[in-house]
Amino acid sequence: MHKILNNIGKLVFGRGSVHQLSSMIDPIREKNNGKFVFIVDHFFKSSSLVGDLKLKPEDVLYFEDCDVHEPTTEQIDRLRDDILLNHGLPSGVVGVGGGSIMDIAKALSLMLTTEGPSSDYQGLNLIKKPGVFHLGIPTISGTGAECSTTAVLTGPVKKLGLKCEWTVFDQIILDPSLTHSVPRNHWFYTGMDTYIHCIESETGIHNNAFSRAYGEESLKLCREVFIGPNSGQNEENDDKLMIASLFGGLSLTYSEVGVCHALSYGLSKILGYRHGYANCIAFNHLHDYYGDAVLEFKQMLAHHSIDLPQNLSSGWTDDQISAMAQVSWNLPHMWIHALGHDWESKISLKDMEGLFRRL
Amino acid sequence: MHKILNNIGKLVFGRGSVHQLSSMIDPIREKNNGKFVFIVDHFFKSSSLVGDLKLKPEDVLYFEDCDVHEPTTEQIDRLRDDILLNHGLPSGVVGVGGGSIMDIAKALSLMLTTEGPSSDYQGLNLIKKPGVFHLGIPTISGTGAECSTTAVLTGPVKKLGLKCEWTVFDQIILDPSLTHSVPRNHWFYTGMDTYIHCIESETGIHNNAFSRAYGEESLKLCREVFIGPNSGQNEENDDKLMIASLFGGLSLTYSEVGVCHALSYGLSKILGYRHGYANCIAFNHLHDYYGDAVLEFKQMLAHHSIDLPQNLSSGWTDDQISAMAQVSWNLPHMWIHALGHDWESKISLKDMEGLFRRL
Repeated sequence: MHKILNNIGKLVFGRGSVHQLSSMIDPIREKNNGKFVFIVDHFFKSSSLVGDLKLKPEDVLYFEDCDVHEPTTEQIDRLRDDILLNHGLPSGVVGVGGGSIMDIAKALSLMLTTEGPSSDYQGLNLIKKPGVFHLGIPTISGTGAECSTTAVLTGPVKKLGLKCEWTVFDQIILDPSLTHSVPRNHWFYTGMDTYIHCIESETGIHNNAFSRAYGEESLKLCREVFIGPNSGQNEENDDKLMIASLFGGLSLTYSEVGVCHALSYGLSKILGYRHGYANCIAFNHLHDYYGDAVLEFKQMLAHHSIDLPQNLSSGWTDDQISAMAQVSWNLPHMWIHALGHDWESKISLKDMEGLFRRL
Repeated sequence: MHKILNNIGKLVFGRGSVHQLSSMIDPIREKNNGKFVFIVDHFFKSSSLVGDLKLKPEDVLYFEDCDVHEPTTEQIDRLRDDILLNHGLPSGVVGVGGGSIMDIAKALSLMLTTEGPSSDYQGLNLIKKPGVFHLGIPTISGTGAECSTTAVLTGPVKKLGLKCEWTVFDQIILDPSLTHSVPRNHWFYTGMDTYIHCIESETGIHNNAFSRAYGEESLKLCREVFIGPNSGQNEENDDKLMIASLFGGLSLTYSEVGVCHALSYGLSKILGYRHGYANCIAFNHLHDYYGDAVLEFKQMLAHHSIDLPQNLSSGWTDDQISAMAQVSWNLPHMWIHALGHDWESKISLKDMEGLFRRL
């Protein structure tokens, strides 16, 4: 049995395409109560972007702070309860921000029509009903959350996605002009998320011609953006990195992440590290798994003078390291992809602790 | 305003994925009368493929002969009338074959719910109602019809697509094992369709980072399939060419074809040449528009010892040439893309006749 990929329903790409939002969501207002819920990264609280979204008076706007932590199941439940209590079942949800906001919008759209705590639904196909319409507008490139078929949440027990038939966005707006103000470190760490997606996607048992084609092109674009003669933050590269992110995400929909993401989830769950940063911290020390790609990554770091912290593990307790290894161990789909179905005969919990001690 | 791309709803890729058809369409049988209409290329009439489709007793099967002509509006109307009269409104349509069958399945799904002759709806957004569910299973790679947002038909007056919100397939099954028995000439001509799509897509005013990324990767795959050290018909290349076709089609959804397709439509409408073959006949003489790509195309021809006919125009009448030029002239969207909005100041009807006389 081959995986059946659920596609994004509609997609628009281009500078200024955010101004087409109303024309895309107005026909949807016929469903439910006619209101739209906007989840916007608090980074844009005093930005002109909010005006560009052209909210109607009845719409509901939340600014969410994604700097303090990645999206949590509690956060989704709080938003869901507040919306249903004070505003009723909306016509749809629009997310405007980075990967965290994309995940919040996707998870919220599902939980608006599903009862109980969202932590009960972390996993595959545990949600049994379609959510409300949801549209994503990414403002930073690299996460692939704009096209992924999962909504990753950190719950009381695990960091794991709500992954079902209806998770993927109904529509996305890819407007590269929204990413021009991304701070350089964020630009690099988040961009590297897609670079690492592609390397992990193609280095494992689930890779096939579909995921390889998306991964190859995404890597080519990443190289142009991060190390080529015209590398750096500029209009042309903002366009390219937005497509690289999309392609990296689409590569993964038919493949899987690997060792780096397994470690990265441990760093995020136990220490609260942001996803892109955590990936970079881990990938930098995975030469024995990802070979030349790690060397290329180090060239990109040097090329953009990114001062990636070293020897972090010297500040971690044994308990923290053991807890992180346990989080990684509990992601068998990543280890199966990276090492094969007999992964448990190739790596032990102790070995995983060893990987964290490298960082 | 940027174009809004309607995506294929669901996609499965992999050898043997045709066996997942029942699991994909059975849930759809709840709609309308529970029957599925299968439109299968008559090439497969005595093939085991028909058994693999696992039709239910109530399903309706048509073998269509696409060798004699490309899909016509009459053919769609005849199928539609026969189905509605004898079987009622079906749950969906499944198309199994090449680009012609893909176009028939897409057009038929629309015309089953729209009254009148389909020639009334050749153009953009003339259809105002969703069609029935439709699923495509390509058995040859290159046309991009599996993902295109139009269903190209030859009508009494023009060769032009039914292009609307609901044209694109709801689901597609990409099973490269179905393409292994394609005769070598067909394999080459149809594969070149995607090569030409990508060259035309990137050589014109509508090209952008989205269509360029798809086009670049598709060209890379075409080169591996048609000229690389492992070129030719084999399992790995069947996989690659199926993805190249998809990517070439997706590149076009955000860009446009150009001079070669404008001429090719003339050849098909007036002389009945098959699309892939007509493209090759035209592209071979378009060095002044597509430069090095035409040289590379000639290398591919030589590499596979394809004996492309020359001096065909010596057998055409002036009336035929003038009629073909008129067909090309009536495709302004292609000329605008290739030459700019002022295309009429750059090429005349007489010049177009000259292009046909080259062939």
